[in-house]
Amino acid sequence: MVAPSSLIDADRLWTRLMALARIGATAAGGVNRQALSEDEIGAWRLMIGWAHEAGLEPATDAVGNLFLTLRGTDPDSPPLMLGSHLDSQPTGGKFDGAAGVLGALEAVVSLAQRGRAPLRDLTVVAWMNEEGSRFAPGMMGSEAFVGERRLHAIRAVHDAAAISVGEALDQLHAAFPDLPKRPLGFPLAGYLELHIEQGPLLEATGRVIGVVSGIQGKKTYDIAVEGTGGHAGTLAMAERRDALAAFARIATVLHAEIGGHDAAIKFTIGRVTVEPNAPSVVPSRVTFSIDLRHPDNAVLNAMGDRLSVLCHEQAVPCGVTVKAQVDAPSNIFDPNLGRLIERAAQAQGHPAMPILSTAGHDARHLAKVCPSAMIFIPCRDGVSHVEHEWAEPEHVAAGTAVLARVLEDLAFVEHPFAVRA
Amino acid sequence: MVAPSSLIDADRLWTRLMALARIGATAAGGVNRQALSEDEIGAWRLMIGWAHEAGLEPATDAVGNLFLTLRGTDPDSPPLMLGSHLDSQPTGGKFDGAAGVLGALEAVVSLAQRGRAPLRDLTVVAWMNEEGSRFAPGMMGSEAFVGERRLHAIRAVHDAAAISVGEALDQLHAAFPDLPKRPLGFPLAGYLELHIEQGPLLEATGRVIGVVSGIQGKKTYDIAVEGTGGHAGTLAMAERRDALAAFARIATVLHAEIGGHDAAIKFTIGRVTVEPNAPSVVPSRVTFSIDLRHPDNAVLNAMGDRLSVLCHEQAVPCGVTVKAQVDAPSNIFDPNLGRLIERAAQAQGHPAMPILSTAGHDARHLAKVCPSAMIFIPCRDGVSHVEHEWAEPEHVAAGTAVLARVLEDLAFVEHPFAVRA
Repeated sequence: MVAPSSLIDADRLWTRLMALARIGATAAGGVNRQALSEDEIGAWRLMIGWAHEAGLEPATDAVGNLFLTLRGTDPDSPPLMLGSHLDSQPTGGKFDGAAGVLGALEAVVSLAQRGRAPLRDLTVVAWMNEEGSRFAPGMMGSEAFVGERRLHAIRAVHDAAAISVGEALDQLHAAFPDLPKRPLGFPLAGYLELHIEQGPLLEATGRVIGVVSGIQGKKTYDIAVEGTGGHAGTLAMAERRDALAAFARIATVLHAEIGGHDAAIKFTIGRVTVEPNAPSVVPSRVTFSIDLRHPDNAVLNAMGDRLSVLCHEQAVPCGVTVKAQVDAPSNIFDPNLGRLIERAAQAQGHPAMPILSTAGHDARHLAKVCPSAMIFIPCRDGVSHVEHEWAEPEHVAAGTAVLARVLEDLAFVEHPFAVRA
Repeated sequence: MVAPSSLIDADRLWTRLMALARIGATAAGGVNRQALSEDEIGAWRLMIGWAHEAGLEPATDAVGNLFLTLRGTDPDSPPLMLGSHLDSQPTGGKFDGAAGVLGALEAVVSLAQRGRAPLRDLTVVAWMNEEGSRFAPGMMGSEAFVGERRLHAIRAVHDAAAISVGEALDQLHAAFPDLPKRPLGFPLAGYLELHIEQGPLLEATGRVIGVVSGIQGKKTYDIAVEGTGGHAGTLAMAERRDALAAFARIATVLHAEIGGHDAAIKFTIGRVTVEPNAPSVVPSRVTFSIDLRHPDNAVLNAMGDRLSVLCHEQAVPCGVTVKAQVDAPSNIFDPNLGRLIERAAQAQGHPAMPILSTAGHDARHLAKVCPSAMIFIPCRDGVSHVEHEWAEPEHVAAGTAVLARVLEDLAFVEHPFAVRA
């Protein structure tokens, strides 16, 4: 067995992470790298260049996922996949997604450089549009891959500038005319994803490695409040149907009642659009998003039902429509893979702790089609989706070394999940 | 004396009003003609063409007001000015502003065509950026004209696309290289403005002409709520400083307490911007506008003070800054001009009623430098700043005929306000 510390090149990993962070870099030190944007195309160029250097074969598919494959000796063994995503929030950080893709690349490139060919293909993946900030909702690449969402429906989604996913995908593919296209969805031996925790638990307990037990359930909604416009100086208050006033009541009650339900719930109104949004016009329409999460599916469903009732109660005299979007119940990851991660962490002197992920990840969808697992590393103050998001170089290296160790366990055997953890 | 019905050409007036409404026309039948936009330049071309046909001399000034002048015989008599504005709200109508500019043009052109030269210059004006929807706050042209606001401060204001008033003004002037420039602000004998009522009183009482007694006071504010961003799925509710949640509480309390103070108050939150405005990110910052109006200056001031206190109370745990913008107390128009309007209306079989304007108008600022007055005509259901805003052709004609009659009273005499009403 190769010693853990020699499984990866930590300096190369960090250098690449910082190089990637320059693509879409913001003035405040963060990253704004939207799905299918010119910046994401730039990130692909970097990734494909690094893949070529190490003998990995790049490819894409119809939904714009990026695959970088180290060929195995047995073409009949389904590939083992590992990765995350390259897109970010509009004011996102350097690590969310990027650490998982570059950690996976580092683990596979290091394995290739040790010279022993794997039995099965090892495929690094960057899933298309995990974040869902340009095109909502997100996780388009992984959902299309596992057959949860249809390609034509994904292609029809538009961004705020009225550009469709279809148009943006065609531009992406046109930028890489020589890139082979794989079929959308293919059999996998398993899926592994390294990610920053996006929560405070590892930092609070002084641990470096989290074995993700599952992902809390999530529901999202798009809500429209319909009122009537008018002149801010002339329309009597008693005669108004002010969509903003109704929205404010709805948001206040939802934050108090749904957001205050228990300590495990997460309730967020993240996006709000006011029409016509002029200082001296009574708003005629307000649309907004709700993001609701809870580890207990029963609570999640009950709060989803309650939320709709509260919207209708508080909207009067305006009208309201509540459209359910994402409806993803809690899921549990593969326990065998979890034990392999735990053992790999222990072997490097990092006793792991189990964590339930409160953020959603592409692994949620992969878990429906193959054994899947996630490795968490700490992020400073537990915050992400902000420009000052930060992970320590030694934590990124430790998580990647664990990933590399698990890869060693799985890459060379015919029945990887018969491995005794 | 010329009979009232022959004072104007009602068909020409309506035809021009409809032609103007095609510039910036919206699909829903309204108008979106922003200040200093290509559409406003198009509107200027129409106006200047009509002015040339009738022998009126076009000119502009440094702040982008448009003047169309019928020369008088006595260059030492200060001009009488009449007009309104050509810009609209983003989802505005065909009449707000446009009816006043075209009514003024029709009154002056008809007088010119009757062949008797006026003693004093008669100047039709279109004030720059009354609405304030592209560049806030509005009334830039009239405020700069009367010396209330400095040109360099106005030029520095930016729109949402980061284009400054200065750049847009330079583009406007470049589009009309031969247009003479008048000095910014010059002595006036008086100012008259025709406008739709933007309220329900004329319609409710079956009257056609309102003599505007004054304009209710107005205060506007720009408010910023500062919170902390974070991941919607991971940041515990108890640890959040959610700027949207704080905004919703503030808006709910302000609508209830300030908006519910009495029947005369008008309270509007018309513009809201959420940052970063992504569905799965806790909002870090919300900025919004307040438009507060009341005819009683004491109430207006008290509510302005109270509003700031409520913002600070409700913002916790977020921070908040309240910046006062417009602070325009109630004003009273010239009573002699008011009596002339009343008499002119009576002579045409339209007994006038006095109305306090709840909307702001450029006349508010002109009243500081010369005798000023306004004429209101009804608008359907009392609504304006909406795409279905509507005024009947016969009401537009009646208001314009009253304006023309008052012009007859004032255009040929040396001391117009010695005229006995």
